[in-house]
Amino acid sequence: MDQDHLRKLLDEVRSGAVEVDSAMERLRHMPFEDLGFAKVDHHRALRQGMPEVIFGQGKTPDEVVTIAETLLKRSQNVLITRAEPAAVALVQARIPEAEYFPRSRAIRVQRDRTMYGKGVIAIACAGTSDLPVAEEARITAEAMGNEVDAITDIGVAGIHRLMSNRERLMKARVIVVCAGMEGALPSVVGGLVSCPVIAVPTSVGYGASFHGLAALLGMLNSCSSNVTVVNIDNGFGAGYVASLINRL
Amino acid sequence: MDQDHLRKLLDEVRSGAVEVDSAMERLRHMPFEDLGFAKVDHHRALRQGMPEVIFGQGKTPDEVVTIAETLLKRSQNVLITRAEPAAVALVQARIPEAEYFPRSRAIRVQRDRTMYGKGVIAIACAGTSDLPVAEEARITAEAMGNEVDAITDIGVAGIHRLMSNRERLMKARVIVVCAGMEGALPSVVGGLVSCPVIAVPTSVGYGASFHGLAALLGMLNSCSSNVTVVNIDNGFGAGYVASLINRL
Amino acid sequence: MDQDHLRKLLDEVRSGAVEVDSAMERLRHMPFEDLGFAKVDHHRALRQGMPEVIFGQGKTPDEVVTIAETLLKRSQNVLITRAEPAAVALVQARIPEAEYFPRSRAIRVQRDRTMYGKGVIAIACAGTSDLPVAEEARITAEAMGNEVDAITDIGVAGIHRLMSNRERLMKARVIVVCAGMEGALPSVVGGLVSCPVIAVPTSVGYGASFHGLAALLGMLNSCSSNVTVVNIDNGFGAGYVASLINRL
Amino acid sequence: MDQDHLRKLLDEVRSGAVEVDSAMERLRHMPFEDLGFAKVDHHRALRQGMPEVIFGQGKTPDEVVTIAETLLKRSQNVLITRAEPAAVALVQARIPEAEYFPRSRAIRVQRDRTMYGKGVIAIACAGTSDLPVAEEARITAEAMGNEVDAITDIGVAGIHRLMSNRERLMKARVIVVCAGMEGALPSVVGGLVSCPVIAVPTSVGYGASFHGLAALLGMLNSCSSNVTVVNIDNGFGAGYVASLINRL
Amino acid sequence: MDQDHLRKLLDEVRSGAVEVDSAMERLRHMPFEDLGFAKVDHHRALRQGMPEVIFGQGKTPDEVVTIAETLLKRSQNVLITRAEPAAVALVQARIPEAEYFPRSRAIRVQRDRTMYGKGVIAIACAGTSDLPVAEEARITAEAMGNEVDAITDIGVAGIHRLMSNRERLMKARVIVVCAGMEGALPSVVGGLVSCPVIAVPTSVGYGASFHGLAALLGMLNSCSSNVTVVNIDNGFGAGYVASLINRL
Amino acid sequence: MDQDHLRKLLDEVRSGAVEVDSAMERLRHMPFEDLGFAKVDHHRALRQGMPEVIFGQGKTPDEVVTIAETLLKRSQNVLITRAEPAAVALVQARIPEAEYFPRSRAIRVQRDRTMYGKGVIAIACAGTSDLPVAEEARITAEAMGNEVDAITDIGVAGIHRLMSNRERLMKARVIVVCAGMEGALPSVVGGLVSCPVIAVPTSVGYGASFHGLAALLGMLNSCSSNVTVVNIDNGFGAGYVASLINRL
Amino acid sequence: MDQDHLRKLLDEVRSGAVEVDSAMERLRHMPFEDLGFAKVDHHRALRQGMPEVIFGQGKTPDEVVTIAETLLKRSQNVLITRAEPAAVALVQARIPEAEYFPRSRAIRVQRDRTMYGKGVIAIACAGTSDLPVAEEARITAEAMGNEVDAITDIGVAGIHRLMSNRERLMKARVIVVCAGMEGALPSVVGGLVSCPVIAVPTSVGYGASFHGLAALLGMLNSCSSNVTVVNIDNGFGAGYVASLINRL
Amino acid sequence: MDQDHLRKLLDEVRSGAVEVDSAMERLRHMPFEDLGFAKVDHHRALRQGMPEVIFGQGKTPDEVVTIAETLLKRSQNVLITRAEPAAVALVQARIPEAEYFPRSRAIRVQRDRTMYGKGVIAIACAGTSDLPVAEEARITAEAMGNEVDAITDIGVAGIHRLMSNRERLMKARVIVVCAGMEGALPSVVGGLVSCPVIAVPTSVGYGASFHGLAALLGMLNSCSSNVTVVNIDNGFGAGYVASLINRL
Repeated sequence: MDQDHLRKLLDEVRSGAVEVDSAMERLRHMPFEDLGFAKVDHHRALRQGMPEVIFGQGKTPDEVVTIAETLLKRSQNVLITRAEPAAVALVQARIPEAEYFPRSRAIRVQRDRTMYGKGVIAIACAGTSDLPVAEEARITAEAMGNEVDAITDIGVAGIHRLMSNRERLMKARVIVVCAGMEGALPSVVGGLVSCPVIAVPTSVGYGASFHGLAALLGMLNSCSSNVTVVNIDNGFGAGYVASLINRL
Repeated sequence: MDQDHLRKLLDEVRSGAVEVDSAMERLRHMPFEDLGFAKVDHHRALRQGMPEVIFGQGKTPDEVVTIAETLLKRSQNVLITRAEPAAVALVQARIPEAEYFPRSRAIRVQRDRTMYGKGVIAIACAGTSDLPVAEEARITAEAMGNEVDAITDIGVAGIHRLMSNRERLMKARVIVVCAGMEGALPSVVGGLVSCPVIAVPTSVGYGASFHGLAALLGMLNSCSSNVTVVNIDNGFGAGYVASLINRL
Repeated sequence: MDQDHLRKLLDEVRSGAVEVDSAMERLRHMPFEDLGFAKVDHHRALRQGMPEVIFGQGKTPDEVVTIAETLLKRSQNVLITRAEPAAVALVQARIPEAEYFPRSRAIRVQRDRTMYGKGVIAIACAGTSDLPVAEEARITAEAMGNEVDAITDIGVAGIHRLMSNRERLMKARVIVVCAGMEGALPSVVGGLVSCPVIAVPTSVGYGASFHGLAALLGMLNSCSSNVTVVNIDNGFGAGYVASLINRL
Repeated sequence: MDQDHLRKLLDEVRSGAVEVDSAMERLRHMPFEDLGFAKVDHHRALRQGMPEVIFGQGKTPDEVVTIAETLLKRSQNVLITRAEPAAVALVQARIPEAEYFPRSRAIRVQRDRTMYGKGVIAIACAGTSDLPVAEEARITAEAMGNEVDAITDIGVAGIHRLMSNRERLMKARVIVVCAGMEGALPSVVGGLVSCPVIAVPTSVGYGASFHGLAALLGMLNSCSSNVTVVNIDNGFGAGYVASLINRL
Repeated sequence: MDQDHLRKLLDEVRSGAVEVDSAMERLRHMPFEDLGFAKVDHHRALRQGMPEVIFGQGKTPDEVVTIAETLLKRSQNVLITRAEPAAVALVQARIPEAEYFPRSRAIRVQRDRTMYGKGVIAIACAGTSDLPVAEEARITAEAMGNEVDAITDIGVAGIHRLMSNRERLMKARVIVVCAGMEGALPSVVGGLVSCPVIAVPTSVGYGASFHGLAALLGMLNSCSSNVTVVNIDNGFGAGYVASLINRL
Repeated sequence: MDQDHLRKLLDEVRSGAVEVDSAMERLRHMPFEDLGFAKVDHHRALRQGMPEVIFGQGKTPDEVVTIAETLLKRSQNVLITRAEPAAVALVQARIPEAEYFPRSRAIRVQRDRTMYGKGVIAIACAGTSDLPVAEEARITAEAMGNEVDAITDIGVAGIHRLMSNRERLMKARVIVVCAGMEGALPSVVGGLVSCPVIAVPTSVGYGASFHGLAALLGMLNSCSSNVTVVNIDNGFGAGYVASLINRL
Repeated sequence: MDQDHLRKLLDEVRSGAVEVDSAMERLRHMPFEDLGFAKVDHHRALRQGMPEVIFGQGKTPDEVVTIAETLLKRSQNVLITRAEPAAVALVQARIPEAEYFPRSRAIRVQRDRTMYGKGVIAIACAGTSDLPVAEEARITAEAMGNEVDAITDIGVAGIHRLMSNRERLMKARVIVVCAGMEGALPSVVGGLVSCPVIAVPTSVGYGASFHGLAALLGMLNSCSSNVTVVNIDNGFGAGYVASLINRL
Repeated sequence: MDQDHLRKLLDEVRSGAVEVDSAMERLRHMPFEDLGFAKVDHHRALRQGMPEVIFGQGKTPDEVVTIAETLLKRSQNVLITRAEPAAVALVQARIPEAEYFPRSRAIRVQRDRTMYGKGVIAIACAGTSDLPVAEEARITAEAMGNEVDAITDIGVAGIHRLMSNRERLMKARVIVVCAGMEGALPSVVGGLVSCPVIAVPTSVGYGASFHGLAALLGMLNSCSSNVTVVNIDNGFGAGYVASLINRL
């Protein structure tokens, strides 16, 4: 029952065409979610500049491009993560404005380039192998209208490189930190700054890294109180939450 | 917004005291769940004879007895699972009709003894150490109005005892099977009967049983297609689902 | 010792050709399972409409098609799950009536289309990636003579879509819920309905989903009492048990 | 080398008492961290209203009270988490203004009650057993100058109670969600709101909850993009990060 | 249907009092397991000297003593493993001939002291902390009529002590090896001898021994081909299988 | 120092060419293992008919064939397990008498076909998917001079097929049982027989079988006391130990 | 066969009382390990100042004190780790020179205070809760004749405290680093220095620290190449290896 | 702020062009790490002969060769580990002096062949399958200027081969031991020698080896006190630490 149906019902109540009891009965069965303008209204402002997102993994090229074209009719910005090579080719053929990022296998259409974020989001990573995840976080944050400062290769084993970037870290309003292996970087960064730090464990490593488990556990046990964690390799999620925080 | 408020609003629409637009605005913000009589009505029949349940673990004796007394005002049957000794004493002092089952640490008040189940629920267990879990399942099923046939000590290592009880198992409409250690009993029972089997891994065992994990994994991998599984030691859940099935 | 041998023995006892002691001795060593008509008889009614099932994974195309042809001589309906591509080709070439479902890699021959189930089985899934598992459950339930209502893409992160389908869920006699990632859907569905819910964790996800472990653990710990669980990606098992319940 | 030494050195350079080369040599060996006023200055504003925190677990009563008294000389607010009973008694005897919260075993001295947060922090929990963790989050957020809206007992199995509290959730600037067992609540809440959600798995449950592991994995795999996660039972950390976000 | 019933039935067939068809019908439903003399006969010889065993853990003192007294009526030897202190006291009071072994918490009544084993069973352990498990294995093997050679404290870190006992190991017909921590002893012993080696991981250790898991995994991966493994701390099982082998 | 050197030294002692002290010094540093004829002698009888074994996995075809040719100079029987396809081709080209078993990827040269085992080894498996592992066990046992009775497809879900084979199982002197999924078969077999049972978990299954872990844990927790366990898919090890036992 | 027997045999060879063949036969069976003086000699120098160590956990007070008294007859220094309270009391009563360290529950008798180490061993820990483990490492290193520099409370979340201690760390010849929770400290320390770093994960933490597993995995995945790891809470092992290195 | 800037500032202080307060302010913000010559100087001696290392896994051939060429301008020795085949080809084409080791997939340029180590590093491995890891350790140790004694195929199941190499092991100053499967070799070696032993678990094995986990846990629980552990398959790390120790 959408707004028009509701108005029609109330008009009929008013006119006496429908009895109150009968109206109650019909309202009682009305699928409440169709009423839900409140939510939509409430969100309208917030959602400005929010990209639509397609999780590419496990979808056929046709599915990906069809969903993308549909979304592009109603959204300014569309982001495709973890796109398979065949899907990339098809999207690039059909959507010329699509930008492809091979390292993170992400595709982005960004028509709305308004800056919605109020400060800078720093996105740091421990080693070059963590770059795909960091890039996914960066592309997400940019698609949501943020200025991003990407800081690469500041692993904890070379603490001086990390310290050299202290100023850049301290200027950020929120920081995303991607690290594999022992996943210690978020703790050290978290101790240097006062802002929220979103830690992304990556699957970089071998042996007892158990595909990112070591980094994940390390980050969950961080002794820095300003650290929260997302799933292994979830650069998108980290960029997304950082963007929400940066809009506050 | 409950029914009275809704009726009052519609009356005011009818009388013209409230404009349609204004009514729409108020409806838009109305918490839909207060409308939800359908669900309650729909459930009324089904819920006859359903006991209210209190999970006793981690609650103070005062909390347990207070909740129990409150529930007994509106429910015929009340079940308390995993009651701590102090809670047992207090409940027995304050609710004389409460029946206590020391093996499973369950307390039950059962005023409605109508048989809602259409057949027999068999509750089988592998060894005497599994009895606390089997008893919790039995008490639950009885509290929900079922005839229960409890079959004890039919572990797979003595397949003849199990085969001797084949008739009883084949008479059941649904079977609950509790087993610790390797948790093989549900597979064997499942192969003998055609009805649904609900498997309850128990934490009985030591060493590589890992507190019921071995039994849990065994049951999830059962080669009998009629087996589903609940949490380790969750006799209550198994008795509950068996009762739902037996009412069909 | 089959029936003919048994009858012959008893005839000889009657005629005096065999002594009672000697007959006892021979009966004592008789492989009891060859007697087991009781079980077969007992099951005959129940088994009407039950498909024969071939687990295709790890079998050669030749093995699959040979087993299928053998089963089709005695069974109306045959279901092949997890068929490898080469097996699919061979089965389609040799058994023209076979229907192939590429998403779930299932093959079905369904000659008996009697409705054995007494109500509707709802099969819900959280996201489009869970569709292969949900489809396997649906095909199984249909092969066993059930009306299925498939409800797609009602993940818990968009609770309104789930609520919109509340009516359909509440009409079902038993519900299968497939979900990967955090596996939360069965709990929410279980709280909305009164009927049994069979939860199927899927391996959809990445990182800390650990190939379905996260969803599995979530479902086993469901706070809804009407939920039981089957193995990861075991759509067949869920459809099978749901069918058993729906026949009651 | 602290500021006085640095000034003395520069004075000597100026006066010519020390050569530039010699000064360079001495600066080169100067422990840089003693210079680090920048960090302190930079943080001064941000740290207003930040409580000092003592992790009580594993410390003797004497250690706890000594640290607390020391901190109270330089900080307005002090928070002690996971205090052992003997420590509670000693702190209450020696620091009369200390407030004790038995459910979460937290002690708080709060002299500065300025509101530093810009909005409301909602702290929701799934069941009453999750209250100790939710309370720790609440006490932390209050100690850091935030208005908190505590919403209890809105588990996903009773989705209507959750939906009834939708308005309160949507008014929050950031939300902390505590849940044990299957840990599904953050996903559902995350789908209803647009703000950041900090998920706290709790160790509430038994069997396959594995002391909070099931809830932890569920939350890490949340299908709601606005969810980040902290350690099991880490109410303090969640309250801390929520406070940082609410100050932005 | 026991032998008497079967004979009666056959007599009636012979006399014509029961028709062959009717006899077949009755035989068809006869619980086969009641026929099963073959198995009993077959086993009679083998079972000579086999003790009855009571797993004491989780049983009340009354249950333990009652079962023990019952078993002693039909068995020469009875073994109680993992007896709780209260059960020990009660058994000793009621069964004077019971012998108690405090290290392994085992109780044994051994009236039949015939040597059924054909050779020596060596039972080796790595350190003194493994002695309780080794003792359980020894008591079991002795109760089953074997000569046991117990070799203590031959951990792999002191390979010379192990080598000094090579002769004793090589004289054994089957060897039980108990080891905690890294569980390496069975591999080294297995390489020195040609007979079967039964490895018992013990829960001795701390930290990453994970209550015996490290030893268990080590033993399962033994590079010595003559090693099989039982559950963690399962001295009884190892002594039992060693005895079976030693009777061959 | 081999025998010739030792004899030479003793001759020199005798002749006085070497002083006793000097001889002692040289003996003290003599690598004892070169003396070790005792071990070889001791083993000579036992080792008759023992095949040499090459673990093919991870070796190049050249390495495999070279080792095989070397071993065939001193051994009658040679067994190659887990051979890669390229190694199979090369071995078949170079060693015409080699017999290849594609299901288990084993290659065997068996010139000595003496029966060293004293009874029958039964090798049972639960399903056809377990056949590769069962075949590896069979080939090993045959290569070591045993009569093998292979019993296929007697999974616990069809307990009647298992019971039909009871006689064959009871005739065996030692039994190898291979099973994947829930791994329950060894417990049931173990309960039917009195001889040692060697359980081999297989990696057959999916989802929560975790590549054989579920079966492994099930077997370690077997409630049948006569069961010991080897590594997942280790058919070779089971066949090897069964052969050792069967020679006793 | 000890030296006297060997000399006697060689004398008899010399004198002709024993034939060479007969001597060879006797030597062939001689237990080689009794010859092994080389090892003892070789070790004599190295072992100077090495304490004898008793692992107190799981030993009775009597056992501990008896072993200690025995060892003190032949060793200068004796160390008892993880002593239970009752054992502490008894040792202190019977061995007055024993020094007790309550934090780490260690007891030490140190008569030989020679400095065998060539440099300083730094022992750093992340937080005060790690002190028991760090103390065990320190006591061990001291008992083995080393100068120890203990550096406390330099967790990675406060990188400035760590940097302030850089000089002390860089002066060490080998460093032991104890850390719980995320276990990141060894990586950071390892990046600052060039010497070997021995990392000790501690069980300090809660929730997803899983009793030290998170720290253990973190350390094994350290991106600093100079880090090796010992078992959780194994301060003794770290102190022991550090001492071996410091003697080189 | 580099040295030139610092000198300029001090010159200006001296000349009076900059006030002391202003200089202090500027120093306060100066990035300390740019000052850090101390560290470089301090390390200069130690770093002689240390190779630069490139972790090849996950890097493109272009990246690998570019980094290698850059490093070769400032370093004598360069080591590339885990090189992909395409990277190997490109490096060999562009850097003729590069030496390739196919077994371990390592590439080495070694211009400085000075012996920096003071003794021999023994590198032992249990089986031929462990050779790739052992080779990586050997190449690393050689690149760092050490004499290496590689001892192959001394698994614990053939303890005599191990004992035969006792002399070589006892001559080493530090030992690296690589072993998969049960990982028992380091414990046995550790018990034979007095020097530090660095254990490398390898992923060699199958089934319950869980890709090296079994070996890793075994080594962490070693009963030999002189054993420390590195990550699974981390031959490089073991060779690196052994080299550091051998320089002492």
